[in-house]
Amino acid sequence: VSTLLVEVDGARLLQRLEALGRCGLRSGERYRALYDDAWVEATAVVASWIEEAGLRVRRDAVGNVWGRLEGTAGGRVIVTGSHIDTVRGGGTLDGALGLVGGIEALAALRWIGVRRTVETVAFCEEEGSRFDTQFWGSRAVIGDITPEEAERSRDGDGTTLAAAMRARDLDPARVREAARDDIDTFVELHIEQGPFLDEEGPRLAVVTAIAGTAHLEVEVRGVPDHAGTTPMSRRRDALRGAAAMMEAIAAVARDQGDPAVATVGRISVEPSQVNVVPGVARFSVDARHSVEAERRRLAAAIVQACERVAAERGLAVHITPLREREVVPTDERVSAVLRDACRAADIEPRPMPSAALQDSQIMAVRSAMGMIFVPSIGGRSHRMDEATKPEDIVLGTRALATALAMLAR
Amino acid sequence: VSTLLVEVDGARLLQRLEALGRCGLRSGERYRALYDDAWVEATAVVASWIEEAGLRVRRDAVGNVWGRLEGTAGGRVIVTGSHIDTVRGGGTLDGALGLVGGIEALAALRWIGVRRTVETVAFCEEEGSRFDTQFWGSRAVIGDITPEEAERSRDGDGTTLAAAMRARDLDPARVREAARDDIDTFVELHIEQGPFLDEEGPRLAVVTAIAGTAHLEVEVRGVPDHAGTTPMSRRRDALRGAAAMMEAIAAVARDQGDPAVATVGRISVEPSQVNVVPGVARFSVDARHSVEAERRRLAAAIVQACERVAAERGLAVHITPLREREVVPTDERVSAVLRDACRAADIEPRPMPSAALQDSQIMAVRSAMGMIFVPSIGGRSHRMDEATKPEDIVLGTRALATALAMLAR
Repeated sequence: VSTLLVEVDGARLLQRLEALGRCGLRSGERYRALYDDAWVEATAVVASWIEEAGLRVRRDAVGNVWGRLEGTAGGRVIVTGSHIDTVRGGGTLDGALGLVGGIEALAALRWIGVRRTVETVAFCEEEGSRFDTQFWGSRAVIGDITPEEAERSRDGDGTTLAAAMRARDLDPARVREAARDDIDTFVELHIEQGPFLDEEGPRLAVVTAIAGTAHLEVEVRGVPDHAGTTPMSRRRDALRGAAAMMEAIAAVARDQGDPAVATVGRISVEPSQVNVVPGVARFSVDARHSVEAERRRLAAAIVQACERVAAERGLAVHITPLREREVVPTDERVSAVLRDACRAADIEPRPMPSAALQDSQIMAVRSAMGMIFVPSIGGRSHRMDEATKPEDIVLGTRALATALAMLAR
Repeated sequence: VSTLLVEVDGARLLQRLEALGRCGLRSGERYRALYDDAWVEATAVVASWIEEAGLRVRRDAVGNVWGRLEGTAGGRVIVTGSHIDTVRGGGTLDGALGLVGGIEALAALRWIGVRRTVETVAFCEEEGSRFDTQFWGSRAVIGDITPEEAERSRDGDGTTLAAAMRARDLDPARVREAARDDIDTFVELHIEQGPFLDEEGPRLAVVTAIAGTAHLEVEVRGVPDHAGTTPMSRRRDALRGAAAMMEAIAAVARDQGDPAVATVGRISVEPSQVNVVPGVARFSVDARHSVEAERRRLAAAIVQACERVAAERGLAVHITPLREREVVPTDERVSAVLRDACRAADIEPRPMPSAALQDSQIMAVRSAMGMIFVPSIGGRSHRMDEATKPEDIVLGTRALATALAMLAR
């Protein structure tokens, strides 16, 4: 096994991340959303960098931008990359690091030469921040999207995803043409988005699994009552029941321990009047874990906790599972190569789960998948002040390039 | 002091309550709102009953309907009555009992004869269920409304109160003409709307005070965070803070004991996304007590409880007092007469506060005020199944008639 570290052009890498970060920056806020003007600008910039690296540029049927470094042996392809879109008010690294780092890695590999073909990709969308859909780019590549979904999915202004495609000279009827069956390995470099590497080290991690999610909708029913004439002891207050459930849900996640997390992000009540005891409360639960059995245990314990509170308080509770995403483990063979690549950079990488969703979990449906993480300062992400030390950005990209060199040998 | 009980026509009283209850009943739901069609129908029905009782009918500048029984001595006037409007989905007794009972009482007094002038009134509005205003009828009588308020206040469809008046041939420019300064006593018969008389007896109560209210708006600020990548131990979750505050607020009211009540009726969060830890939570608090010093103590303890939870959890909290309504005590001299009247009906009345708001608290600004309560079955009110035993309805109306006879002597 080689321990040769592949060097990359660190200065250019950092400049390009800054340059890509300017696409979509307006009035101090960054927002680059699928098929908007900033997205068009960013894809053009990325395409120019791919060409500059001496790679063949290709734009597929949904607007993913590919760069290809032809190997001498042909056969199935190794791909690296990440997404080009951002959340509203996002930073310069989430997604961007993986795709700009991927271009730099391929530029370095071009001088070394590869036996197997390696490609880099800028997925057109991952965040789900404009349209009522998510992973549009990576799902197109695994053949998981349809023209019907493009016609159905709308943004906040009512524009369909299909109309937005046509405005960019993309034909929504042809989205299935973006599907590929020749990719056998996918590797993604990404920021952690959590605080662990920054606070505890080391400077690199190899991802063990991408956390799975359970989304629940909880409806609590009590009795709407007059806020003046109903004594405290006789109330069946749906919102107070929900409050006790929220505290119980947080305790369940805390007791199960990291990386278990549970979040109540939305809540509403009826009749929602200052002077009426709420008769109905509805809230969402987002529960995550990176071990599938633990994810299921967490979701079940949350349901039990809500039912227990409801029983104690004479309330009815109805819990609807909205969406389940199972844990996606990374590929052990690919991860072994990623670990060796980190060691070539003199870092013994930390094995850790990804708490965030990733394009990699979609690509894992059809390919052996692995991920490298670099630290996020203060764990900050999905915010303007998202940051990673420049030396860690370069280090992660060197590890990515080294891993690709090993995989492509 | 007389102990002669004044008899009323119980059968007609019960029939009239049923008849008034049919005004505004549509598709199984009752709703009679200020200046709507059901309101017009109800005021016409009430006016006809006043005429049938041989009283002089008068409709004032805001649509309150008055019936006058002239006394032999002239001078300042004794008034009884209540409101004609209902909440959406309201019952047949809230408001209606006091005004139909008042007409029956005056019909009985007409045969006995009175030295002082006694009037009955159907206030046009008390519930605040249509327009962005409340106590429109009683506030008009004490001279507390203006044409500007009529132009400013709108219903859910955007119709101004002034436009709704014009549609009923009432001139909003002349609302001040409804004011009176010749009422020295106001007496109201009402259902309890709470469970105490029904469950513990006796069948009549004389109100000691009308509870005061503190309305607060609480804003909790934490840090919005990624629902996946932020470990439970590092969250500053505004909604979980709000949940702990809601539990603490309920505990404060419970510990202070009846009649202290505190209600969180409205809540919202930002950014209100399933997968984002809430950064901001806002909720309303409605706190009530019928002793003014206790009302202030309750409000202060709620503020302290919220601040303590915020400090424990590293959250910021900002509490805005929205409205304060001080406790309104009833008049001791009037209440003594009401007690004697109850005793004439062989009931030793229970002294108790009104937990609900009442027209009486507005009338108390200019007049000596007292109230009689009859039981509400199961404490139910502001609902279609609001009910009082027929014998209690008749008993309360006899006590009212007896009290008016004593006051008018």
